[in-house]
Amino acid sequence: MGDDKDVKQDVWVGFDLGGTKMLAVILDENLKPLGRKRRKTRGHEGIEAGFERIEETIEKAFKDADVDPARLRGIGIGCPGILDLKKGIINEAPNLGWENAAICSYLNKKFDVPVVLLNDVDAGLYGEFQFGAARDAHNALGIFPGTGIGGAFIYEGKILQGNGRSCMEIGHIQVAPNGPLCGCGRRGCLEAVASRLAISAAIAQAAYRGQAPYVRELSGTDMSDIRSGLIADAVEKDKVVKQIVQDAAYQIGLAAGSMIHLLAPDKIVLGGGLAEALPDLFKKGVNNGIKDWIMPSFKGSYEVEVAKLGDDSTVLGAAAYARTYFQNEKSPEKAVVAS
Amino acid sequence: MGDDKDVKQDVWVGFDLGGTKMLAVILDENLKPLGRKRRKTRGHEGIEAGFERIEETIEKAFKDADVDPARLRGIGIGCPGILDLKKGIINEAPNLGWENAAICSYLNKKFDVPVVLLNDVDAGLYGEFQFGAARDAHNALGIFPGTGIGGAFIYEGKILQGNGRSCMEIGHIQVAPNGPLCGCGRRGCLEAVASRLAISAAIAQAAYRGQAPYVRELSGTDMSDIRSGLIADAVEKDKVVKQIVQDAAYQIGLAAGSMIHLLAPDKIVLGGGLAEALPDLFKKGVNNGIKDWIMPSFKGSYEVEVAKLGDDSTVLGAAAYARTYFQNEKSPEKAVVAS
Repeated sequence: MGDDKDVKQDVWVGFDLGGTKMLAVILDENLKPLGRKRRKTRGHEGIEAGFERIEETIEKAFKDADVDPARLRGIGIGCPGILDLKKGIINEAPNLGWENAAICSYLNKKFDVPVVLLNDVDAGLYGEFQFGAARDAHNALGIFPGTGIGGAFIYEGKILQGNGRSCMEIGHIQVAPNGPLCGCGRRGCLEAVASRLAISAAIAQAAYRGQAPYVRELSGTDMSDIRSGLIADAVEKDKVVKQIVQDAAYQIGLAAGSMIHLLAPDKIVLGGGLAEALPDLFKKGVNNGIKDWIMPSFKGSYEVEVAKLGDDSTVLGAAAYARTYFQNEKSPEKAVVAS
Repeated sequence: MGDDKDVKQDVWVGFDLGGTKMLAVILDENLKPLGRKRRKTRGHEGIEAGFERIEETIEKAFKDADVDPARLRGIGIGCPGILDLKKGIINEAPNLGWENAAICSYLNKKFDVPVVLLNDVDAGLYGEFQFGAARDAHNALGIFPGTGIGGAFIYEGKILQGNGRSCMEIGHIQVAPNGPLCGCGRRGCLEAVASRLAISAAIAQAAYRGQAPYVRELSGTDMSDIRSGLIADAVEKDKVVKQIVQDAAYQIGLAAGSMIHLLAPDKIVLGGGLAEALPDLFKKGVNNGIKDWIMPSFKGSYEVEVAKLGDDSTVLGAAAYARTYFQNEKSPEKAVVAS
């Protein structure tokens, strides 16, 4: 590809590499989506099979868009886990079971364009900043409760990153000393208390005790079956479910209050399936937590919003980040494999 | 002043406006100190008297430096409290008893040069970043335990600030739900648990109980008399004092661990009188707290150092910030009253 020098390179690929699903979207120079392809990730099949699957998914998205892949200008790829942003390597992605996966250089070789890797929540918030709930923000904080709780911060238009690594691991700040065990091995992390997973587990307990008859009838006590859609239904039926969600949102609000003291965001974006399924309940709980924690001088300095782009936030953010990066040579060194 | 157009404007003023003391330093174009003047602040005498005192202190520093004030290029002033950085106004400084004090426009009129206001801990960390313990840092986190606990973050060479306000209020993140009452009215803030003030109160209690006989003999149980120097002596004599300081440093370390997850600093600078009086004990306690909290992927990514510039960190940082700001027209809008 890229042989035909007369073809104008004016389209971008945004890619969302998730633990269960992957999504490729082809976007024009204004980042308007032209076509897309979604597939299961199948991370357990290994890195080589995974890379080929990613490549094919992009090719299928080009077919869906009916666009010549020679027009490709660059790729942005959002991914969870521990990433080497400078080298474009997935160091460790527990949800995929991958280690040291050099995704950027692979795609760079295959498509002959520059490829940039970034954290999926960073990409999601950047998408919301460019096109969604944080469009008018000066500084935006993102909190995305899911299996864990992802965080991100846009500082004066740029994603806050460590020196070559993603950060804003808001799920792993300590909120409850000696609190519940977290997936990371520590105790009392925010995500051990308030992630969608923690909420599901609390609801499963309530169902077992007979306090959540609607949930018990619909899904039993297997917390794997207690997902965002079901929880959103159940808050109307089982009082305890509403309480559990409110409590978790309140906890997230307390942590958001600490974040306001630290980072002074003017916009706080709540993302992820559960917040998007229950926007009003979640927003209210978070606002209550913030109000109970915030210092007077920060009052009125922030606004809480629920993400607006759904599954597209990550692909849009990844593509926008790639476009910003590769079109602006003055950008500081970042997650990139140049073509 | 400034009438003689032939005089080269090549010196800077760094000013540290503290609750008890003020310090003015005259610095050459390379920010080498040429002269200085320190005086009591006497904030209770009111804003007008205070402004005149600041002006006189700067004039006396010029005399000490034997420098013609016509050479003044700009002023940087570090101050605690709630500041309007864009307008250069001290909105609320409880330690001074001042409200809505327009310090920048006052000094701008008196000295006919641009004046920039910034938070004192921001200035202190910026000083350490330019000349002290954080010189080689990419991203530096500052934690300055004193009456409260001040925080600051240098992100890619720039002070992290909200949109026209200082932030990084690390003293007011929640570390102990339902913990001790904080000066801000909430419970369980980091500074309610681990500030120099909290440490002094715990030591006074121990002295009262008879567990700290050395302290009891030297200063009695009045916590106002239990200051950094005394505490530094007492750790060698009273076992419980050492334990109290270690515990506080450990708590700060746990919070620093959360900060590493959020901001990925490669350098953490501990400042303030107590940390500087007990550098090894403090560093060890903080490192232990971080080690017990940090996720494996962040191990080895940071280094803890004690501040090196003492009382000069704020004046040096304020002057360096003014120089950076006023010499670089491309800087984003910031705390400034232009001449």
